[in-house]
Amino acid sequence: MATDAPWQAIALRKQAQRQSRIPSAWLLKTPPLTSTLDVRFIPGTSGILDSHELFITENYDATSLADAIRSHQLTAEEVTIAFCKRAAIAQQVCNCLTEIFFDKAIERARLLDKEYERTGKTLGPLHGVPVSLKDSFNVVGFDSSIGIASLTGKPAKENALLVDILLEQGAVLYCKTNIPQTLMALDSDNNVFGRVLNPRNKLATAGGSSGGEGALVAMRGSVLGVGTDVGGSIRIPAMCGGLYGIKPSAERIPYVGQENGSRKGASNIGLPASAGPIAVSLRDCELFLKTVSDARPWERDPSLAYGLWSEQGSIERQPLLGVIRQDGVITPLPPVSKALDETVKSLRNSGLEVIEIDAPAFKKCQSLANKFFGIDGGNHMFDLLEATKEPLTTWLSTRLRRGTPISLDRLVDIHAQKVELETEMLKVWRDPRTGRQIDAFICPVAPHPVPPIDRWNGVSYTSSFVLLDYPAGTLPVRDFSEEDLNCVLSNSKPLGSWDKINRELWDEKTVDRRIYLNTTLSVQVVAPKLQERRLYQAMSLIDSILQMKSIGRAKL
Amino acid sequence: MATDAPWQAIALRKQAQRQSRIPSAWLLKTPPLTSTLDVRFIPGTSGILDSHELFITENYDATSLADAIRSHQLTAEEVTIAFCKRAAIAQQVCNCLTEIFFDKAIERARLLDKEYERTGKTLGPLHGVPVSLKDSFNVVGFDSSIGIASLTGKPAKENALLVDILLEQGAVLYCKTNIPQTLMALDSDNNVFGRVLNPRNKLATAGGSSGGEGALVAMRGSVLGVGTDVGGSIRIPAMCGGLYGIKPSAERIPYVGQENGSRKGASNIGLPASAGPIAVSLRDCELFLKTVSDARPWERDPSLAYGLWSEQGSIERQPLLGVIRQDGVITPLPPVSKALDETVKSLRNSGLEVIEIDAPAFKKCQSLANKFFGIDGGNHMFDLLEATKEPLTTWLSTRLRRGTPISLDRLVDIHAQKVELETEMLKVWRDPRTGRQIDAFICPVAPHPVPPIDRWNGVSYTSSFVLLDYPAGTLPVRDFSEEDLNCVLSNSKPLGSWDKINRELWDEKTVDRRIYLNTTLSVQVVAPKLQERRLYQAMSLIDSILQMKSIGRAKL
Repeated sequence: MATDAPWQAIALRKQAQRQSRIPSAWLLKTPPLTSTLDVRFIPGTSGILDSHELFITENYDATSLADAIRSHQLTAEEVTIAFCKRAAIAQQVCNCLTEIFFDKAIERARLLDKEYERTGKTLGPLHGVPVSLKDSFNVVGFDSSIGIASLTGKPAKENALLVDILLEQGAVLYCKTNIPQTLMALDSDNNVFGRVLNPRNKLATAGGSSGGEGALVAMRGSVLGVGTDVGGSIRIPAMCGGLYGIKPSAERIPYVGQENGSRKGASNIGLPASAGPIAVSLRDCELFLKTVSDARPWERDPSLAYGLWSEQGSIERQPLLGVIRQDGVITPLPPVSKALDETVKSLRNSGLEVIEIDAPAFKKCQSLANKFFGIDGGNHMFDLLEATKEPLTTWLSTRLRRGTPISLDRLVDIHAQKVELETEMLKVWRDPRTGRQIDAFICPVAPHPVPPIDRWNGVSYTSSFVLLDYPAGTLPVRDFSEEDLNCVLSNSKPLGSWDKINRELWDEKTVDRRIYLNTTLSVQVVAPKLQERRLYQAMSLIDSILQMKSIGRAKL
Repeated sequence: MATDAPWQAIALRKQAQRQSRIPSAWLLKTPPLTSTLDVRFIPGTSGILDSHELFITENYDATSLADAIRSHQLTAEEVTIAFCKRAAIAQQVCNCLTEIFFDKAIERARLLDKEYERTGKTLGPLHGVPVSLKDSFNVVGFDSSIGIASLTGKPAKENALLVDILLEQGAVLYCKTNIPQTLMALDSDNNVFGRVLNPRNKLATAGGSSGGEGALVAMRGSVLGVGTDVGGSIRIPAMCGGLYGIKPSAERIPYVGQENGSRKGASNIGLPASAGPIAVSLRDCELFLKTVSDARPWERDPSLAYGLWSEQGSIERQPLLGVIRQDGVITPLPPVSKALDETVKSLRNSGLEVIEIDAPAFKKCQSLANKFFGIDGGNHMFDLLEATKEPLTTWLSTRLRRGTPISLDRLVDIHAQKVELETEMLKVWRDPRTGRQIDAFICPVAPHPVPPIDRWNGVSYTSSFVLLDYPAGTLPVRDFSEEDLNCVLSNSKPLGSWDKINRELWDEKTVDRRIYLNTTLSVQVVAPKLQERRLYQAMSLIDSILQMKSIGRAKL
């Protein structure tokens, strides 16, 4: 790597610019010790937020913030300042931000307060609520460099449609968040902005590709962030942060107006990505999805399906849930299976019917999804990198290389395979004994707990639902416990190479299991295509049962 | 053309098989004279249907047939026999059928009657209603040869999903209908089954590609038929037959399980076709769309969007309509503009607001759609034809040839153009002065009236809404009148080669305008993507106003 490669100067400049956008009063007097692994306490001890600001950032979700602003208990301005301060601290301890525009945010919040004062009307359901955005979303006047040097210094001239909608509905935008180089890695690390750290444990991954978003929300530097997901990029960082995250179907929420390092039109022939929320509460996910859907985004983005929030399905009065315990590619490690099992037991104990789903087609999904990710040979991305002689990050360097775009015949073939697999997978939605429709099913988010940095293994549990275009969400179950450390891995024959690598994440020879302490075990909930409300209702039902259980546990 | 080419023997065999499936008592004693151009009277004089059967076939639509069967005024059996007889006659005078299964249909109708007698319950909203199908739909035990010799003798082993749904909802299937070779022509002619004739005027085209369907319904050998449309193939034959026809958005009605001469998976990267109704009444189109949507087809076809009929949009209480008078590629001939103008005037006279829409992007749609139709070079189709040494039909022979599949880069490019054009076209849905949404707009179905055989010119007015995936329907306005013959064509400079050819259809040197007498002038109604109910409501409103006007005219 030449020391004078153009990308290096660009990275230094970009980092300096980012640093300069944090008011000096909001800079930490002393950075945390390297040995401090859980940095979530730092906003509380930093002296940068006063007690009111700490209260605002720690005791509200987006829904209650909107309520408090609407009922004049809080002003948009004080809320915005509190979250800008906390986001500034999050950046200093987790490196989770890319573009910072606190000044504009505070100015807008003041304007919103004034207008509300003057008219007595809020702009919309998000009036005054700070919302953070993944770096890929275009915001006028700021780069969408996605951590690639050659894309810096090109401020967006138009907002992404979702950005416009959020603003119209009253949101306050204040920062964009860090991502992995190429957006196709599970750790959010790039040459321009560096690596995002997990605030719960700096040795654990923050996940990706919406890793900055996950870390920022886990720090409560945001309560509601917007990520994108084409392989797990919302659900994985949500799991890493112990948060809620929903990947909608691709035709639901506007994705248009983002930089993602691929050519325009490419998503029409491959697997389209989705935009969706990462949040501290499940109801905030609904607030986001409902607000955006009811703003009729299909009138402005031709790729979207018609459908108000009330027209996005619902669960039955007596819901039937399913559980898929493994995908046939990677057997979940014991604590993952245990959390899933506990969830199923809680649901059944509450009187809910949960049936075991046998989904033999599930194991074909990952390899087919991988074929789609490789159709264009990644040439556009490599061109972008080479323009400033930028190297791949270490993790990607052994996994990516330039390829040849596949032929049209081959493309038709893999689409035919997709149709066949989608059709086969539709069977999972029906109870084979009774013919009844399953309202939603649960399965792992990943076959392992939140792993050490750069060791996320396989995305079969998440990318499959991109291939199938099912809305899917991450739901926290409980924290990993000391007791979980003693789970024993069966010594059956591995299912394949992915499974073998996965077992290393439970092998004391290659991992210190104690890294999993202080991370959250989650499950994934999945609903049929374009039924986001059905997904939300199922998640809400499961979440309420898990919350009751945890209240019960606390009382004992 | 070698006299011993394999396709010729196959065609003879297939035609003999078709003929053998018409009971001899239903064969016309004397075929109509060649000089008889309007053959619609023949069922009435044939002596094959008795007066009750004539009444059944001439005085009901699918909705009232279903009502009459449900209320025990008619049996499914007598209805089915009546329509089988009339379809048999239609075949003999219009050559509109391919596969015939009257015996199975009558057997099923008897079973439906018995079951209804026994249980007091109908199978569904279509209980006992005969429904005809385009040849492309797989029906177990019968070919889906689409008029290609090499595809004959391969009876389907599974029903198309839509076939299963229609059966589950009580429909009686009795025949499949004739199409053009390759499905990519506007006259329905092929080497295996021959050419479909227009029963209103044998010198005028019956249209295509669902031309057999249009002719059969125009003969009232069916009141409700199912066609498919990827360039105008439902809307064009509906216009040729003076009928109603709706092309839904591609993700709405199951298309899966058809033979269309292309490779599996191909529609995922190109323009997908839609299945939809051709019917004698508009409410039958609703019956079809509502019945299929409410059968939850998305649970069985993964390509479909979620959405019950009630979740497919609606018009406003005070609707705002638009009119697009021309597409910028071909100026409509005077009678077409006149019918459109009359429609707009009637709507305005009824107090409806109709605004003029300027849609500069419209003219780019056709050439982009054409790029999509050519992406695979048609090689699969040519292979099918060459397998039996089958030549192209005369009309296609100057228009089709083997090409090379385009590159992936080029494919991405045309998809990028599509996204850009779709986005630009979204502007037509908003009144630029007030910002109000337009509920639906009207425009021509074609730039000319129903033309002579093999002279349909251009499909820009129909294929554009396949490119854009807007639901669109054909609505009959009134019959072409003697007075219309005197319309004068402006002598402005032609817009281009398509426009020039179009003018020849009004030039007495190249056409006898009297061919247009006895054909129907229609308009097209268009709604935004996936809002089929909104389209239906708009069409229904316009139709009721036009009907009132025609009643008014009749009274004068």
